[in-house]
Amino acid sequence: MDDCIFCKIVKGEIPSAKVYEDDTVYAFLDIAPLAWGHTLVIPKKHVERITEMSAEEAAALMSVVPKLAKAVLGATGAKGLNVLQNNGAVSGQAVDHLHVHLIPRDANDGLGYRWNAKQYPEGAMDKVHRKLTDALG
Amino acid sequence: MDDCIFCKIVKGEIPSAKVYEDDTVYAFLDIAPLAWGHTLVIPKKHVERITEMSAEEAAALMSVVPKLAKAVLGATGAKGLNVLQNNGAVSGQAVDHLHVHLIPRDANDGLGYRWNAKQYPEGAMDKVHRKLTDALG
Repeated sequence: MDDCIFCKIVKGEIPSAKVYEDDTVYAFLDIAPLAWGHTLVIPKKHVERITEMSAEEAAALMSVVPKLAKAVLGATGAKGLNVLQNNGAVSGQAVDHLHVHLIPRDANDGLGYRWNAKQYPEGAMDKVHRKLTDALG
Repeated sequence: MDDCIFCKIVKGEIPSAKVYEDDTVYAFLDIAPLAWGHTLVIPKKHVERITEMSAEEAAALMSVVPKLAKAVLGATGAKGLNVLQNNGAVSGQAVDHLHVHLIPRDANDGLGYRWNAKQYPEGAMDKVHRKLTDALG
């Protein structure tokens, strides 16, 4: 897409610290990192949300994550890693070109997901479960 | 693994609200959800971290995420979705059998990632970039 900053990065119209590229995937350092080595993995083809990807496109994108994750941990010496992909503004997605965050983690780094776990009220889990299995046909 | 709770779920030794299953992947509702419809997608084969997966295993696991994400959004009516996979205790991983969280999101739900973005000091990004590209050979 013409006005998409990540499409411009893929095309080389905006410079980036590229760490990986193949026919369908491009990866580069986030310039506003949550931690040193924070890397973005994106499909070259413009797509906004994971729900718009085919099984094959999602597979191709994620097939490179194990080796990139290993390299990020090796290069940074971090003790852990969050793999995060946000869909929709309400989820924290700031650029509408699908991207997977590789976020190196260490103790007391002030990062991580707000883990506000709940309990299903009586019967509520069954109801969601039925809707979900219905949606999957 | 004998003492792994997710291996027991895959084998049916512990009950779960299953939403999907194929030869290599199993998906079910998280019983301590961050939001209604919070779903876990796991490889049937016991593996702890994404760095231990082959490209093919990561691809097989993630290939089902688009359709599961669509079903979770359809069933819950949520406006967004976080796809999150934690590696290592320091990253928030609570069960040492690799799992991908599908977390439905809505405005003001108290969830999301702590987005404490930083700036690289002069020269620091180049240094990390060199280490990363070296690590990738």
